[in-house]
Amino acid sequence: MTGRIFPTAQDAENAFYEALERCDLDGMMAVWAEDEEIVCVHPAGERLSGQDQVRESWARIFAAGPQARVRIEQQVAISAMMLAVHSVFESFSIPNKPEAQTVPVIATNVYLRTAAGWRMIVHHASPAPAAPPAAPRDTPPKILH
Amino acid sequence: MTGRIFPTAQDAENAFYEALERCDLDGMMAVWAEDEEIVCVHPAGERLSGQDQVRESWARIFAAGPQARVRIEQQVAISAMMLAVHSVFESFSIPNKPEAQTVPVIATNVYLRTAAGWRMIVHHASPAPAAPPAAPRDTPPKILH
Repeated sequence: MTGRIFPTAQDAENAFYEALERCDLDGMMAVWAEDEEIVCVHPAGERLSGQDQVRESWARIFAAGPQARVRIEQQVAISAMMLAVHSVFESFSIPNKPEAQTVPVIATNVYLRTAAGWRMIVHHASPAPAAPPAAPRDTPPKILH
Repeated sequence: MTGRIFPTAQDAENAFYEALERCDLDGMMAVWAEDEEIVCVHPAGERLSGQDQVRESWARIFAAGPQARVRIEQQVAISAMMLAVHSVFESFSIPNKPEAQTVPVIATNVYLRTAAGWRMIVHHASPAPAAPPAAPRDTPPKILH
């Protein structure tokens, strides 16, 4: 999995949320740049930096096994030649528990174009105060020239 | 103020925190890109996007007048030709109230190189669970070629 190549930042983002839903640690770490400058902030959590801290945090989160579905919406994307920034809402819900409230999270995801394709370098997530407003913001990504 | 040019992303970041301390709305908005894709998340707040929402939020925050000092530390910076990403700890404290606790905040700041110099496009701040660990992380910024 670590040799996986993501041709676009969106491919890396899709793989990130797939790994998150599947609690797939190898899949998750294959999304991140092999770099000590990576930064990860889980909702209400510390800032983690470097491969070791980031891997350890996901291992701890995934230890409970697959349980949550994540719906991504209202993406605002800005991309340049080497870096891409996506702002998204994450809605976490537990399958087979329709009575459970979905938990809204705001995330800023930053991707870097490396020799091995696009990789995540920043995931900053924080609790959103309420469900996102209804108006969709899934506008086409803005490309900088 | 809106014609101010920031030659580097760090210049834009310095101006951002100066405007924040001075409650200077014009100075604050001069830091932001004149772009509808800008995104701002205040600690525990909604995701705001576009000039109107971002300006209105700072006007509301600044209405109380200058009061907080902000110390920035442990910056992790990654920059490319058009975009720069800074992860920082913000420590808010109230002058003349030494007994007040400093409030630690984690922020992801993203800057875009525009025709008018570097401007902020994303400010995502969230409460940090505790004071940052002691080990300094003020490493030189990593430049991508």
